[in-house]
Amino acid sequence: MGVVDLDLTADVVDLTAALVDLESVSRHEQAIADAVEAALTALPHLDVVRRGHTVVARTDLGRGERVVIAGHLDTVPLNDNLPSRNDGTHLHGLGACDMKGGDGVILKLAATVTDPVRDVTYVLYECEEIESELNGLGHLATEVPDLLRADFAILMEPSDGVVEAGCQGTMRVEVTTHGERAHSARAWRGDNAIHRAAPVLERLTTYQPRMPVIDGLTYHEGLNAVGISGGVAGNVLPDRCTVSVNYRFAPDRSEAEAEAYLRTLFDGYDVRVADSAPGALPGLDRPAAKEFVEAVGGTVNPKFGWTDVARFSALGVPAVNFGPGDPMLAHKQEEFVPLEQIRHCERLLAAWLGRTG
Amino acid sequence: MGVVDLDLTADVVDLTAALVDLESVSRHEQAIADAVEAALTALPHLDVVRRGHTVVARTDLGRGERVVIAGHLDTVPLNDNLPSRNDGTHLHGLGACDMKGGDGVILKLAATVTDPVRDVTYVLYECEEIESELNGLGHLATEVPDLLRADFAILMEPSDGVVEAGCQGTMRVEVTTHGERAHSARAWRGDNAIHRAAPVLERLTTYQPRMPVIDGLTYHEGLNAVGISGGVAGNVLPDRCTVSVNYRFAPDRSEAEAEAYLRTLFDGYDVRVADSAPGALPGLDRPAAKEFVEAVGGTVNPKFGWTDVARFSALGVPAVNFGPGDPMLAHKQEEFVPLEQIRHCERLLAAWLGRTG
Repeated sequence: MGVVDLDLTADVVDLTAALVDLESVSRHEQAIADAVEAALTALPHLDVVRRGHTVVARTDLGRGERVVIAGHLDTVPLNDNLPSRNDGTHLHGLGACDMKGGDGVILKLAATVTDPVRDVTYVLYECEEIESELNGLGHLATEVPDLLRADFAILMEPSDGVVEAGCQGTMRVEVTTHGERAHSARAWRGDNAIHRAAPVLERLTTYQPRMPVIDGLTYHEGLNAVGISGGVAGNVLPDRCTVSVNYRFAPDRSEAEAEAYLRTLFDGYDVRVADSAPGALPGLDRPAAKEFVEAVGGTVNPKFGWTDVARFSALGVPAVNFGPGDPMLAHKQEEFVPLEQIRHCERLLAAWLGRTG
Repeated sequence: MGVVDLDLTADVVDLTAALVDLESVSRHEQAIADAVEAALTALPHLDVVRRGHTVVARTDLGRGERVVIAGHLDTVPLNDNLPSRNDGTHLHGLGACDMKGGDGVILKLAATVTDPVRDVTYVLYECEEIESELNGLGHLATEVPDLLRADFAILMEPSDGVVEAGCQGTMRVEVTTHGERAHSARAWRGDNAIHRAAPVLERLTTYQPRMPVIDGLTYHEGLNAVGISGGVAGNVLPDRCTVSVNYRFAPDRSEAEAEAYLRTLFDGYDVRVADSAPGALPGLDRPAAKEFVEAVGGTVNPKFGWTDVARFSALGVPAVNFGPGDPMLAHKQEEFVPLEQIRHCERLLAAWLGRTG
């Protein structure tokens, strides 16, 4: 099969529709990555590097500042929602919102801003929707961090065309209670591990979330049981009960601090960290970030969920989410993106990058 | 394959060993039931009825009183614990304790007490160790209750050769809490069903058991979570959590009273009865029971676990557990029965039934 031809001179909405129709469920990004690589390689002002199904294209004009603009190419699984459909106001279809709209903007910028006022590194990567260890951006960060070196990064995840800065960290711990089995007809011979979990749930229900203000943004932490299990048989006192607890922590707390907080809160219990990812500070004190926020209208919201901006943050690069589409529609069968938001994001970014003509 | 010949003139211990070696895991009782039926049919003083793999043998001497002496023929699954082994003090092997020792006593009594002072109905039944609806004694109680009519019943389940009277009832309810799903990064948009289960566990941990005295026996109720489950995904507030609660209630409480108690205790929650079985009053005020207790030494303990004595109780027949073997060894790979307990039980029952010679 030949490489699909992407027309980067087309309107950004039509380009987005073409990307939606290039089915690219996670682990099946070869066709879209081939098409993107071919289209970008044809542009003389860009240096293109391909790693796996991740494509990086850079200007190298010796500007005083460099910005990364990134988007993932993959989507969640097909759900009877292809091909795309343009109703005149919205573009519908798998990935339209998360995040082919952002990818369309990136490709349009890459093709049309031939002489940007700041150097740009465009990153279109694979495997964002699945296990973290397969994430294409993560692979770049680990293997070729220099490729991501920049003063600022924009991740074009859907954010309704408004800047979302930083992101909260997330840690999941398993809090296990231990008891002793006994026949439930002679309960006094045992020690019920589910009953021992009562104070664990009590601590969760009386938890008061921290809401720190960072760079003017109010974050909102959360501590929730996301799973509980215990039980041996209908006539047996269980000797084990595990509560899976998810802590979402504001980016002024490190993973180590988050873990210490949880270990203190659940002091006396068997606590095991199941998974963890650090937050990202908004970094709005950096000049590049400040200018960007002003350029796109000044409104900034805090990002509560974890996103790949944290990968930039870990490299010392302040990063924000800014892209077309309502984040609440991501992963829904009926996802769509408003045409006007695609155009709005493209227009603002092009102006900020100094497109002329 | 021919019917195995059981020698009812053998010593009761050797007879028990022969029964242990006649492998009879639940649903595979044909061979042992055939052997038992053939051996009992050969005795002229007994009328034998076979239903499924349950064998009933009765004297019909017109005595003023009738007693049922019952035991199940089936065992839990084989666990590398056959054939039987007699070490001179104990008989080891699958079912030795639960309850081929009791079965051996029953067959020995049936063969040797040819002219009892009270009419006797011997019942050797199938499928006690599995689902209640297959229980052979249960089938008799439903289909031919007249066959079980008696003034008193002795179930020869292992009780260390001491009378255990009555049994506690058991009811399992599922207490479910309902909430609303939300992404755990924006917990304030949802309602965590696991957190809502905290007061359910709290009520279980502060529960104080009733310990009513009935016919001089102190019962001991129990209320325990035997299972808990909830959870959708590691980043989702769950909308449902179910606590499975087992209530063991003393036999002065009916099932309806037990259910009412639980519904009051968990008022405001979604409570569903998952299964239930009534208790059995000890019935030690009945003359036949009193005499039996005196005949076997006067010691009586309350039975905490649920047993088939409740099936007799439901028919209006007072019943007790009395048999050789430590009940704590039932279902264990290493189960055994002390030879002296087999002989002790056989001796006392034979005397009570009026064996001469």
